[in-house]
Amino acid sequence: MDKQAREKAGLRGVVAGATALCSVGDGHELRYRGYAIEDLAAARTYEDVALLLLRGELPAAAAREAWQQQLAAARVLDPAIEAALLALPAGAPAMAVCRLVADLLACAPDAPDEPEAAAAALLGTMPAALCRWMRAARGQEWPGISRAPSLAAATLEMLHGTAPAEADVRALDVALILYAEHEFNASTFVARVTASTRASCLDAVAAALAALKGPLHGGANEEAMRLISRFDSPAAAVAGVKELLAEKRLIMGFGHAVYKSGDPRSPVIKEAARGLSERHGKQEMFAVAEAIEKTMLADKGMHPNLDFYAAVAYACLGIPTELFTPLFACSRLSGWLAHVGEQRASKALLRPAAEYVGPGPRELPPAA
Amino acid sequence: MDKQAREKAGLRGVVAGATALCSVGDGHELRYRGYAIEDLAAARTYEDVALLLLRGELPAAAAREAWQQQLAAARVLDPAIEAALLALPAGAPAMAVCRLVADLLACAPDAPDEPEAAAAALLGTMPAALCRWMRAARGQEWPGISRAPSLAAATLEMLHGTAPAEADVRALDVALILYAEHEFNASTFVARVTASTRASCLDAVAAALAALKGPLHGGANEEAMRLISRFDSPAAAVAGVKELLAEKRLIMGFGHAVYKSGDPRSPVIKEAARGLSERHGKQEMFAVAEAIEKTMLADKGMHPNLDFYAAVAYACLGIPTELFTPLFACSRLSGWLAHVGEQRASKALLRPAAEYVGPGPRELPPAA
Repeated sequence: MDKQAREKAGLRGVVAGATALCSVGDGHELRYRGYAIEDLAAARTYEDVALLLLRGELPAAAAREAWQQQLAAARVLDPAIEAALLALPAGAPAMAVCRLVADLLACAPDAPDEPEAAAAALLGTMPAALCRWMRAARGQEWPGISRAPSLAAATLEMLHGTAPAEADVRALDVALILYAEHEFNASTFVARVTASTRASCLDAVAAALAALKGPLHGGANEEAMRLISRFDSPAAAVAGVKELLAEKRLIMGFGHAVYKSGDPRSPVIKEAARGLSERHGKQEMFAVAEAIEKTMLADKGMHPNLDFYAAVAYACLGIPTELFTPLFACSRLSGWLAHVGEQRASKALLRPAAEYVGPGPRELPPAA
Repeated sequence: MDKQAREKAGLRGVVAGATALCSVGDGHELRYRGYAIEDLAAARTYEDVALLLLRGELPAAAAREAWQQQLAAARVLDPAIEAALLALPAGAPAMAVCRLVADLLACAPDAPDEPEAAAAALLGTMPAALCRWMRAARGQEWPGISRAPSLAAATLEMLHGTAPAEADVRALDVALILYAEHEFNASTFVARVTASTRASCLDAVAAALAALKGPLHGGANEEAMRLISRFDSPAAAVAGVKELLAEKRLIMGFGHAVYKSGDPRSPVIKEAARGLSERHGKQEMFAVAEAIEKTMLADKGMHPNLDFYAAVAYACLGIPTELFTPLFACSRLSGWLAHVGEQRASKALLRPAAEYVGPGPRELPPAA
């Protein structure tokens, strides 16, 4: 297949609908509803950004207060969900566990079906369920549902069983903001196609969770971590990456379908990762990551995307690698559900056509 | 939004990839890998058709025998899945239950990840799980896993607790064949986008199950049944449908994105439904359906699609309405997974573009 046909097969550049949620300029910037991602990451919380995406505007003080109370009230772990998590086999893929949680929520006959209410329910239950499951899998005692005031703080507290440092909370919050929304990526597109059949909010999220799991999409941050972990020094990283490139292996965490000259989120998460690496004594890991970055730029002209330094940041925060994609999912819940709201307003059933390349009409042979 | 823009928003006519699985001619016929759907429905089994879709050719006797043994061996209900089903709240949506089953299969670290193996696992577990759950919800004793030789026979036996009549098995088999595959419909497209991220076979199926749930897609057969059930005579049906049309209500089970002058599957399922209605003393229901069909054609120029008479057929078979879409899903498993195989071969990540219609660049206000 030639380049043009391949790009067509991937729908690259094909406009599949309209959105007011985010813009990527000509592939050089990222804005959520007009606000630069750098500004939001520097000065707002994930909770503010979620409301911006879901409602269209940043909240005033009263709206923020009400939203935080709604999120705090939703941070529960239904005993039936907890029991299902504890019954899972060892080694269950974490993203399948995420879907299970979404589907158990969807099995409730009174499951929320407005984007904002569904977001609150999922943002409340999902991190609690993941931390509960992960701690049980590691034989660790469960500290119970965190009452910390933010998703970032609560997640770190439930994961580690201790109150997190403020700087760690802030760094995770930055990552959550950067991951919250990204136009018509594969999982969001899946959520929109699902919503276009008039399926429910939770259906759309379940479908998006499935698409996010792939290593070419949400799974990329875990692949990036596995790469970084292979090297114990910058020199080893340079040599190792050159070897992988010579073998024509795909290096995850670099390049992007939209950004050809660098992902605008990467410098933001890189600075967060640098700060975390210094506070947590992981400077060597950060140096390895930088060596990989320089090698990829020099040898392939490729820039890191958000997933690359997010992996370093998560590792510094003590987040197990198998939770990287689920955490991406938790953050993206607000983007997905805002897209569901948009898709519902558009009424169109997303149903493309296919080029038929199979056998021509033929007679049925008698059954053997 | 004008018609052209709406069609664009729905990707109607936009080629999103290639397939050798099925062709719709110019919207006047349906062939699976070159074979007319009428021929397959008349002379083959669902199991043969599933292999045709998954492997490319109809099986010879030995391959059929091996496939049937594989399917029979896969017809199991893991005690953990059974326990999860029995713990569900009353009134859980059946399609969310389907997803839950797919998720629990996906949580096994050794879950199958080749299309054929995944199809066997799902075709084995899904109908058993659905019947187990449905019988428990109705307070009926569970007859255990059926050892009947086909998906159609086993499903009827597990649902009703008695061996089904051969004519009923054959009619359900026809419905399963007709529902097995249908090009780039919304759920299949979702499966392909999910597979394009290199997610697993079970991930792709979970996503497709979510999309199929919507009333504009797989949910249409249930909506059709609810419409038919409202009327106790053909005259009442004609009057009632005219009234709904006057209120500009959407009548499900009519029209199709691809077939503008009639769904080629409809005459086939209609004859199956007619036979079933006579054998089961449901001639009045069939007459009501025909009255609705005639009214829709006369007043709106719209033809029934597969979902309309499939609803009648299922009702005659004593299948509860809430299992109509799940049964559609069971059948479509083979089509979805054949598409996953094709998508994996294509390598392209399906990632379309969006038209940005939101606010222009703006300064971030100070947090309130």
